[in-house]
Amino acid sequence: MRHLVYIGDARVDAVPADGRGVAYGDGLFETMRVHRGAVHWRDAHWARLEAGARRLRLALPDRRLVEAQADALLHGKPDALLKLIVMRGAGGRGYAPASAADPVWILSRHALPAPSRAGGLVLRWCDTRLALQPMLAGIKHCNRLEQVMARGEWQDEAIDEGLMRDTDGNVVCATAANVFVLRDGKWTTPPVEHCGIAGVCRAWAVTALEAGIAPLSVAQLESADAVFLCNAARGILPVARLGARSWLPHRAVADAMRRLADAHPAFADSLENS
Amino acid sequence: MRHLVYIGDARVDAVPADGRGVAYGDGLFETMRVHRGAVHWRDAHWARLEAGARRLRLALPDRRLVEAQADALLHGKPDALLKLIVMRGAGGRGYAPASAADPVWILSRHALPAPSRAGGLVLRWCDTRLALQPMLAGIKHCNRLEQVMARGEWQDEAIDEGLMRDTDGNVVCATAANVFVLRDGKWTTPPVEHCGIAGVCRAWAVTALEAGIAPLSVAQLESADAVFLCNAARGILPVARLGARSWLPHRAVADAMRRLADAHPAFADSLENS
Repeated sequence: MRHLVYIGDARVDAVPADGRGVAYGDGLFETMRVHRGAVHWRDAHWARLEAGARRLRLALPDRRLVEAQADALLHGKPDALLKLIVMRGAGGRGYAPASAADPVWILSRHALPAPSRAGGLVLRWCDTRLALQPMLAGIKHCNRLEQVMARGEWQDEAIDEGLMRDTDGNVVCATAANVFVLRDGKWTTPPVEHCGIAGVCRAWAVTALEAGIAPLSVAQLESADAVFLCNAARGILPVARLGARSWLPHRAVADAMRRLADAHPAFADSLENS
Repeated sequence: MRHLVYIGDARVDAVPADGRGVAYGDGLFETMRVHRGAVHWRDAHWARLEAGARRLRLALPDRRLVEAQADALLHGKPDALLKLIVMRGAGGRGYAPASAADPVWILSRHALPAPSRAGGLVLRWCDTRLALQPMLAGIKHCNRLEQVMARGEWQDEAIDEGLMRDTDGNVVCATAANVFVLRDGKWTTPPVEHCGIAGVCRAWAVTALEAGIAPLSVAQLESADAVFLCNAARGILPVARLGARSWLPHRAVADAMRRLADAHPAFADSLENS
């Protein structure tokens, strides 16, 4: 793991101790799959970052500089995860944001995730609920205590991921992935207008699979014909079990994974290796 | 302004770039008024920090070490604000918290806030709403994008603070203070079980003024006989105006300020100077 820190156009030695990231989680992040030195979905990641920056009125660093620095960081490590955090610049005490200040940003390189469980993921329900906050929903901001608490609910390594509901009881996502269900031959994923994150892989899947976007109840999920999770780091992850409910491998999931393999070369390789 | 950073018992040079504070706002903070070298409400601040740590299952640093380091930081600056941030330790990518890791903590010293507007504060209503999240309500955690966005709604220096409502429309607090209203001779402040922060000065005022804790509507606030804001940095701040509504100085607010002056020496001095 390696981290590079910048303020505006300048490389700096360390994250400012008075930074707004530390104080308030006042920032955005993207986690990108790097395959043979390239971020295949980089336009989609940058577009979501821009959408978040508009919402938070956050200044972004120069995209060309970010990409050049990322290329240097990835040199010799062409298959990795690349994480970019962008925080609002200028410190001090108090909530008032200084919109004109240069952003603080961090690039880091991480190992690829371990291959997912053969036969499909084992899930649980999280007790931690997602609050309904339309102002912050959809974007990938750094206020993630809900996810931290949800992920902290289990240590059992037999459990791969946890599904989260909102405070109204609707199913929204897993702690670090979006969720899709197959019912009557049609894929559906929950909306992210009140909570949850508009995942880059989710956006691909909605288009490619002609998926519907609709509220999802616990009963609808548990009675679905097939379920998968997805994110930009790991692609499509079939779900095999949730508590007492189990799903056999389903052709529609295999089809979705093949389509993703056609669309994104990193997931073609992982399909071949699975 | 000066910052000292620690991991567990050891002083370090900088905030870790892979820290969970930066990535997720996975931490707690306290802002304390230092008067003649002493934090008068230090037990109450530490108790709230402990309550937050229990909720987030966060390890705290050794209190004696924190206080000794704070004393050294405040040497020669006996009247200041002292801020303590405690973040969950151990970095890496992914939400799973490592509960056993030493916490990362930051002590910083700040100038006292400027004296508040003579005649009372001028307030506005914020458009940004507080989401209902009982799991995080009351504690002073570092997921503060709602407050940052609310405080970012105005730049007009004629406005001192903004009042925030929750997503159900109830009045909760100001961006950086609790709120009390006088109706029929009785003080009331909103509950903080669904959102908002259980302020240290709020707790003092609830007891000292025998205040009720009850949901507060916009209409109830605007028709109140008197309104004040309070926090541990600035004490009790009378409110003079909110949009078209104005309040004349009220004896009950002056009484409350005198009681606070009796209870906390920092606010005795500021009362004398006002």
